[in-house]
Amino acid sequence: MNIVLLSGGSGERLWPLSNDIRSKQFIKIFKRKDGDYESMVQRVYHQIRKVDENAMITIAAPKTQVSAIHNQLGENIDISIEPCRRDTFPAIVLAVAYLRDMLKVNAEESVIICPVDPYVDERYFETLKELGKQAETGEANLVLMGIEPTYPSEKYGYILTEARKDISKVSMFKEKPDKETAETYIGQGALWNGGVFACKIKYILDKAHELIDFTDYQDLLYRYETLPKISFDYAVVEKEKEIQVLRFTGEWKDLGTWNTLTEAMEEECIGEVVINDKCSNVHVINELDIPIMAIGLHDVVISASPQGVLISDKEQSSYIKPFVDRIDRKVMFAEKSWGSFRVIDIGAESLTIKVTLNPGHRMNYHSHKNRNEVWVAISGKGCTIVDGMEQEIQAGDVLTMEAGCRHTVIADTELQLIEVQLGKEISIHDKQKFPLEL
Amino acid sequence: MNIVLLSGGSGERLWPLSNDIRSKQFIKIFKRKDGDYESMVQRVYHQIRKVDENAMITIAAPKTQVSAIHNQLGENIDISIEPCRRDTFPAIVLAVAYLRDMLKVNAEESVIICPVDPYVDERYFETLKELGKQAETGEANLVLMGIEPTYPSEKYGYILTEARKDISKVSMFKEKPDKETAETYIGQGALWNGGVFACKIKYILDKAHELIDFTDYQDLLYRYETLPKISFDYAVVEKEKEIQVLRFTGEWKDLGTWNTLTEAMEEECIGEVVINDKCSNVHVINELDIPIMAIGLHDVVISASPQGVLISDKEQSSYIKPFVDRIDRKVMFAEKSWGSFRVIDIGAESLTIKVTLNPGHRMNYHSHKNRNEVWVAISGKGCTIVDGMEQEIQAGDVLTMEAGCRHTVIADTELQLIEVQLGKEISIHDKQKFPLEL
Repeated sequence: MNIVLLSGGSGERLWPLSNDIRSKQFIKIFKRKDGDYESMVQRVYHQIRKVDENAMITIAAPKTQVSAIHNQLGENIDISIEPCRRDTFPAIVLAVAYLRDMLKVNAEESVIICPVDPYVDERYFETLKELGKQAETGEANLVLMGIEPTYPSEKYGYILTEARKDISKVSMFKEKPDKETAETYIGQGALWNGGVFACKIKYILDKAHELIDFTDYQDLLYRYETLPKISFDYAVVEKEKEIQVLRFTGEWKDLGTWNTLTEAMEEECIGEVVINDKCSNVHVINELDIPIMAIGLHDVVISASPQGVLISDKEQSSYIKPFVDRIDRKVMFAEKSWGSFRVIDIGAESLTIKVTLNPGHRMNYHSHKNRNEVWVAISGKGCTIVDGMEQEIQAGDVLTMEAGCRHTVIADTELQLIEVQLGKEISIHDKQKFPLEL
Repeated sequence: MNIVLLSGGSGERLWPLSNDIRSKQFIKIFKRKDGDYESMVQRVYHQIRKVDENAMITIAAPKTQVSAIHNQLGENIDISIEPCRRDTFPAIVLAVAYLRDMLKVNAEESVIICPVDPYVDERYFETLKELGKQAETGEANLVLMGIEPTYPSEKYGYILTEARKDISKVSMFKEKPDKETAETYIGQGALWNGGVFACKIKYILDKAHELIDFTDYQDLLYRYETLPKISFDYAVVEKEKEIQVLRFTGEWKDLGTWNTLTEAMEEECIGEVVINDKCSNVHVINELDIPIMAIGLHDVVISASPQGVLISDKEQSSYIKPFVDRIDRKVMFAEKSWGSFRVIDIGAESLTIKVTLNPGHRMNYHSHKNRNEVWVAISGKGCTIVDGMEQEIQAGDVLTMEAGCRHTVIADTELQLIEVQLGKEISIHDKQKFPLEL
């Protein structure tokens, strides 16, 4: 099957574990069998691979997420990189053009469009496979996945069907009804709209050409910033008459808030945590390297990262967004394709970070206009290139680099550095990249 | 008046704001009129000075607290330094010998012995002055301060008196009675024992010579580690027949737990804190440089420092000690006579700290056996001495020092360094001091 995973999301609703770079799908919170933790994107990716090892998986993501995706899924993953945020219509069109023009997939084949973060078991992906097959039959232009409701939710969209069958024609869409109306819909066999659908690649490209003037993927990428911010629902689904829906009756969860996310945690605590037995319904996720102690609390979620510490009543944890907006949004940690970094000190004219390079990886060859840097290697081995000069580096070595100097570091083993940045105008945007011939 | 402030205390009950170096009396939590915060020891010191600007104030403290005392009260404060922890009898005798032999106070004068951390107003110290005067009359050998009880507490000691007068003879001591018995005592005019008393200097020295074989202060200091661990109550008070008590009716609070401490806070939050209006009876003290957000909590204290983060039901905050014992006790921050430091990263074979030197101050001239160090100055100006060589230092400068190399730094302005320690056995005890001739 061909599947596009839509990776969007902001850093606010799961603050402080998410930030402007790490959206919720990259938080490692799900325990694997080997005891390590994986993120939503890793979990979904591996689930799809298990159901169809030959699946053509493309992740549609803004460019800010590319490093994190490479870090979590490896270098060989196909990513349709959005140069800026538009809405789902441009994002889906770009990804499908990528599939057609870059990956050379036949336009008569179907593609499944799915968010990157459903919390589901493998049966869900088995159903996705059927969804793709159904789209290829051509019985309808679009085939949606409808989720059998488990309660009259007021926060989902409902799909009303012409018949109570596994596959049925869609008669109407209803957004977020009140509880009573939702009950009526459910009585009529309505399904939740999980935002998942399949269609032929050709169908999306045809719709795209109706609305956007472009030739191919490269041209579309070039024009991306000028595309209108419209949703796929608005641009396509609402206008389409020939839509079917495929009923899915298995488990499906939308883990968008701390409250729902902690329900999916296997253990009550992750990280260095001390919790006493007077606590009930308390979840603690601690990504700091200092301990958190919870004493005598009830119905509370505690989460901590270098961005900050949240302590919230679980019920109220869905209302944190306006408070997060009040807080300085400087990114304090990030996963990069080559490893990770975290800010450990912010001074008036300095910034100190801890950098971890994964074995065999390297940073871009780059320079900064407005800052000097001092690197102190604290563990591991590798090699640095500074203004073209190659030099070995290992724990204890110190490098100083003036503004303008081009530099990179290549890790042989895992390599950790303390990097002190010095200057009046320190900014993550102050970075020029250069090609490097090794 | 001559007053000895007993500065003891462990780092456990007010974790994480206290640690093995910073006992509760050094936590800056009380708002001054100028908007800054002061600690218990600063508050008490300034209250005494206000009541008696010529008071001879000596702080009896273990050597681990000396840096913090100098940092908070200046270099000229008199400290009777306990080389190790004994109990109150040796500590009081040492301080009184210091008063007699080092400060040359007449042994016929009285001395007031008082804990460093009562939460009181100035009337309390007016009463202390009277206590000293009463001791000098010689009507009794010891004069205690008795606090008028405000409720039948089960956690204090009670002083039973012969009469309900302002000054009366003590008839009996009763430790921590149950509530009913406490009510009976209060009905009889009993007072709480706040651990404060006055007597002539001579009286304590005479008692000391009865129990300890020593000549003078220096000799006592030398023998200090061999002295028995006994309390002043056990060694002296319980055996003394001639004791008076002076009644104090003003406000007096013992701020020993998070619950009682937060009651004395003027504001509900200190530090970078976001709290929503659904919170009630919540106090947050945040000494980290990342924000804390509290949403929908009730009756909770949150406190955070580089040691860790505590979130506790207020009622239960007095029971944290056994949980603190489970946590690694590495000191993550401290105030030193020359400034302060905090640990910002702990590696397998490295430790990175941020050092702040106050203007005009310097570290000891010292070396380390088992670690190399790299210093990166991030703000300010000063001068370093490395193996006798003097050199100016300012923001951006880097110094590397091999194990064994003697070094110090002297701050002209406030000077901040990132110090990376590198070695297999990094320990705060790995330090040799050397005299430095400037």
